[in-house]
Amino acid sequence: MTPERKARIEQVAAGRHPDLTVFLERVHKAHNVAAILRTCDAVGVLEAHAVPPTGGIPPLNHTAQGAQRWVKLHRHHDAGEGLRSLKAKGFSLYAAHFSDQAVDFRQPDYTQPTAIVMGTEKFGVSEEALAECDGEIVIPMAGMTQSLNVSVATALILYEAQRQRQAAGMYKPHSLEEEPWKSLAESWIRR
Amino acid sequence: MTPERKARIEQVAAGRHPDLTVFLERVHKAHNVAAILRTCDAVGVLEAHAVPPTGGIPPLNHTAQGAQRWVKLHRHHDAGEGLRSLKAKGFSLYAAHFSDQAVDFRQPDYTQPTAIVMGTEKFGVSEEALAECDGEIVIPMAGMTQSLNVSVATALILYEAQRQRQAAGMYKPHSLEEEPWKSLAESWIRR
Ligand SMILES: C[S@@+](CC[C@H](N)C(=O)[O-])C[C@H]1O[C@@H](n2cnc3c(N)ncnc32)[C@H](O)[C@@H]1O
Ligand SMILES: C[S@@+](CC[C@H](N)C(=O)[O-])C[C@H]1O[C@@H](n2cnc3c(N)ncnc32)[C@H](O)[C@@H]1O
Repeated sequence: MTPERKARIEQVAAGRHPDLTVFLERVHKAHNVAAILRTCDAVGVLEAHAVPPTGGIPPLNHTAQGAQRWVKLHRHHDAGEGLRSLKAKGFSLYAAHFSDQAVDFRQPDYTQPTAIVMGTEKFGVSEEALAECDGEIVIPMAGMTQSLNVSVATALILYEAQRQRQAAGMYKPHSLEEEPWKSLAESWIRR
Repeated sequence: MTPERKARIEQVAAGRHPDLTVFLERVHKAHNVAAILRTCDAVGVLEAHAVPPTGGIPPLNHTAQGAQRWVKLHRHHDAGEGLRSLKAKGFSLYAAHFSDQAVDFRQPDYTQPTAIVMGTEKFGVSEEALAECDGEIVIPMAGMTQSLNVSVATALILYEAQRQRQAAGMYKPHSLEEEPWKSLAESWIRR
């Protein structure tokens, strides 16, 4: 490993946000999961979460640009259980979901510990998952189509979080003497 | 056609923005073009532009959710020529492109007539196209991967334009007595 590569890895590890994540409920197209992991990597998500669709998450090819190596994907068997475990860790859960209660996606305070819950391409977020969420958010649409692509919707919300966190000075690097950044940098350098 | 459907169509037509567009340079994956057209529809782009990849734009399936019916896609043979024709109509051209001159994508004033130039999945925006552009914009990335998915990047820029235009009161409906909204509503209702 070149010194430049090591420095780059350490810099990225030190910039990870353990308190910003996505929870994908049965998103099943490989290119969508790939695009979402690239976006997670780009905004500094430490770990992503998913309930895999029936048959599992399809193999990610080069379109993920290796993002799956830099963003750990936690798999959950059950949406309710997975979401409750995040809530127990202090995350606010926002479902990206069309409903009468949904607020504009730019409204929540994403500088707090936040998990964004995204639904399947076909059926959206399940009732079971909605029941665990603290709020619902919607991206305004002024056209004839019903919804945005799921990787597009995820990115719009994550980059709104990025904007707020940037403004709040939350992209300053963490100390690599501290956890979880210490272990993360070590494991990335070791492999 | 039900009265509700007619009203919906007229409302969407009256909200179209003739002065906001994208120019896709040889984007070749159907799912990316589909996702981009859905986003264009959602933010009210009247017409999109593309230089098709070799072999043409692949057929769009249901993942486009019919967006291709609501957002006309102009095809150009040549990027330089196509971009010059937009410039002649008063558009500022911004290339989404990594370079030393690129500014943050939230910096330009997108309330002015704007075309966003997006590059191919593999090679980005061509030198030929860059030479026609008024500026380069970049979406900040704090991870290990090199770029975002092209439909994700397009959406982030278009929704920044949406945010600015919303704040500027530019989503008020236009009069259906005026062009191009008049012809648009008529042709949508007729078909
Ligand atoms: C293709 S959409 C699914 C649409 C599904 N037919 C429904 O009605 O919920 C996939 C997921 O993307 C997200 N999504 C898409 N467009 C959105 C928008 N405008 N606002 C919020 N979330 C959106 C939601 O999480 C949704 O579950
Ligand atoms: C997958 S990228 C192509 C990357 C290509 N290897 C390059 O180096 O330009 C496809 C297109 O998405 C857009 N894009 C992706 N990530 C971007 C970012 N962070 N900022 C600006 N544009 C981006 C650009 O228009 C780019 O040409």
